[in-house]
Amino acid sequence: MSTQNHEPAGGTVTSDDVRAAARRLAGVTVHTPVLHAPCLDEHTGGQVLLKCENLQRTGSFKFRGATNAVARLLPEQLACGVIAFSSGNHALAVASAAAAAGSAALLVMPSDAPPAKFAAVRKLGAEVVTFDRYTEDRFALTARLAAEHGLTPIPPYDHHDVIAGAGTTTAEFLDDAGPLGVLLIPMGGGGQMAGAGVVIAAADHRTRLIGVETASGDKNRRSLQAGERVRIPVPRTIADGVTGEIPGELTFPLVRRHVHDVLVVDDQEITAAMALLFQEMKLVVEPSGALAVAAVLTGKVHAPGERVGVVLSGGNIDPTRLYRLLHPEPDETGH
Amino acid sequence: MSTQNHEPAGGTVTSDDVRAAARRLAGVTVHTPVLHAPCLDEHTGGQVLLKCENLQRTGSFKFRGATNAVARLLPEQLACGVIAFSSGNHALAVASAAAAAGSAALLVMPSDAPPAKFAAVRKLGAEVVTFDRYTEDRFALTARLAAEHGLTPIPPYDHHDVIAGAGTTTAEFLDDAGPLGVLLIPMGGGGQMAGAGVVIAAADHRTRLIGVETASGDKNRRSLQAGERVRIPVPRTIADGVTGEIPGELTFPLVRRHVHDVLVVDDQEITAAMALLFQEMKLVVEPSGALAVAAVLTGKVHAPGERVGVVLSGGNIDPTRLYRLLHPEPDETGH
Repeated sequence: MSTQNHEPAGGTVTSDDVRAAARRLAGVTVHTPVLHAPCLDEHTGGQVLLKCENLQRTGSFKFRGATNAVARLLPEQLACGVIAFSSGNHALAVASAAAAAGSAALLVMPSDAPPAKFAAVRKLGAEVVTFDRYTEDRFALTARLAAEHGLTPIPPYDHHDVIAGAGTTTAEFLDDAGPLGVLLIPMGGGGQMAGAGVVIAAADHRTRLIGVETASGDKNRRSLQAGERVRIPVPRTIADGVTGEIPGELTFPLVRRHVHDVLVVDDQEITAAMALLFQEMKLVVEPSGALAVAAVLTGKVHAPGERVGVVLSGGNIDPTRLYRLLHPEPDETGH
Repeated sequence: MSTQNHEPAGGTVTSDDVRAAARRLAGVTVHTPVLHAPCLDEHTGGQVLLKCENLQRTGSFKFRGATNAVARLLPEQLACGVIAFSSGNHALAVASAAAAAGSAALLVMPSDAPPAKFAAVRKLGAEVVTFDRYTEDRFALTARLAAEHGLTPIPPYDHHDVIAGAGTTTAEFLDDAGPLGVLLIPMGGGGQMAGAGVVIAAADHRTRLIGVETASGDKNRRSLQAGERVRIPVPRTIADGVTGEIPGELTFPLVRRHVHDVLVVDDQEITAAMALLFQEMKLVVEPSGALAVAAVLTGKVHAPGERVGVVLSGGNIDPTRLYRLLHPEPDETGH
C-alpha cells in the first residue's frame, strides 16, 4: 500500500487517478465478482449484471476509498493516525484500512449508535469517541480532536482520493463485463457516482449513467434540477447508508457532468429488492446497497438487448433486521 | 448443450468425463466465484477459499449434474422428457436443466412437501406428481411413470453423468484458486465428492480431500470404516439436503479411493457456520451447504500456510427459516 506520490491531490478527479488507485488497491481490496441476475432481466429487456460490493472487505465499497486515502498519506501522517466520523460503512472501512496500513484510527460516533457498531470498529483495532448527536457538533468535535492529536481526517465521500478509490468499482466492472448500455448506482453523498462518471467518460462506451436514491432523500435529483447543491431535511428511510442532507462539494460537479438521470425508490421497493436478492441470488444486501436493484424492479429502466450494470454497494445488515424488514409488524411500520 | 457423443456412459467416471462435462456446461452453468474468507483463516492457520455454489443457477451445485445428464440424452429421449424424485435442490436442478434443453420434466414429490417447493418447480415449467411418503413406494412409482410415459430418470447422484457434471465444481475451483492443500466438501449421496476425487487425483496436487457430513447422518464415515456401504436410519438434522440413508453404488468406490477423511458436525455447528457466512461474507447458505464451513469452525482442520478450499454447496433457504434457525424458540428446539 505504499506510494511514492505524496503531493497533495488537488483539482478534479481524473481517470488516471482511478487507475493509480487501482494499483494501490490491488491485493488489498477484493476484486468483487460480477453476477448475472436472470431474475432481473425481464424487468429491463436486457441482461442485468450485478457488481457485488456487498462482498467487498468490511461489507461495502467504502473500503476502496478509505484504503486509497490511507495509502496516499505521508509516513508522518500514518504514524499519527486518522480520524473519521461515521457510525456506518465508512467507519468500518476507515478502521480496517488504517489497521491494514499499520496506522491508528479514531472514530467519532454518536453515543446512541448500536453497541454492535462500536464492537465492530473496536474489533478492527480502532478507538472510539462518542458524542451526543442532539447537543454536540460532530464537525467541530472531529476538527478539535484532529488538531489536538495530529490526526488526518478521512471524509466519507468529499475527498479526492476517496472518490478515486470508489471509482475502481466501475473500472473493475467494465474490465469484467465489457461495455454497459446502462450503469445504475446507489447515491448518497455521490462519491461512488463521481468516480464512476470519470471512469465511464474515459471509457467512451456511451453508457447511460443513472443514479438511484430514496424518494424521501432525493438531494441529488433536486440538486441536478436546480443546477446547484440543494440541502434537504434529514430523510426518513430504511436506507441508513444514504441519509446525508446535501451532495458533496467535490462530487456534485462530477455528478452534474456525467450523470444521465436520477431515479428514486421508496422503502417498500427497497425491501422487495432485498428479498429478491436473498431468495434468487443468495446475496445479503443492506437497504442502501439495494437501491439500484429496487429501481430495476420498478420497471423504469428500459434497456432492450443491452447489458445493464447494477452496483450492489453494501451488505451490512444483521439477520434480525433483515427478517423484520421483510416481515414488518404492524406496530413497527404503522401499517 | 448439444453433444455428438451419444453412446451410453458406463464404467467409472474419469477426469476426461469431467472435462467433457465442463465443455457441455460452458455458458449454461454459472462459473461461480471463489471468495477468500479471512474470518475463517485463523481456524485453520491457512487461507480459506470458498467456492460459492450457492450462487449457481437454481441455488446449488446440483444444476451441474442435472445439466450434464440432460445434455447427454438422445434426441428421442429429450423429446419424451425426464423424470426425477426429489423435493429439494435436485428437483429444481432437473426442472431447470430440462427447461433449458427444451425437454419436459416430471417430478415425483411427497404430497406434504412445502407449497413453495411445488410452486418453484412448476414455475420452471415442470409437472409434478405427488405421493404419500408413508404409504407409497417412490421408487416403484417413479419406475412405473417412467415406463408408462417413456421418461428418462435423472437420479440425484448415483449416475455417471451426474457425477461428471458435479466434478466440474472442483475443476473450476482448481483453475481459479490453484493447488489446494485441503479441499472440504459437504457429503450426502457422494456425487459431488466422487467427482471431486476424480479431478483431484488427475491434478496430482497432493490435496487432502475431506468430506463433511452430519453427526446424525454419518453414513459415509461409517461406510468407509466398514469398507462397504452401510445403511443408517433416516438422520434427524436441519441439513435437509443430505438426509439419505446409504452412499451411492457408483459414488462409494470413488469416495473410498480418493477421500482422505470424513468429519462430522452437529446442528449447532451448522447454524454457527450459516450465521458467520451471513454476517461476515454476506452469503445466504442453506444448512447442508454450510457443512464444510462448520467443520472449519470446529477447529478440526489444521492447514498451516496452506490454501484450504471449501465448497458451499447450496443456498436454498428462505429468510424466515434462516432467521428461526439463528434464533430458535424454546418450543421448537426443546432447549
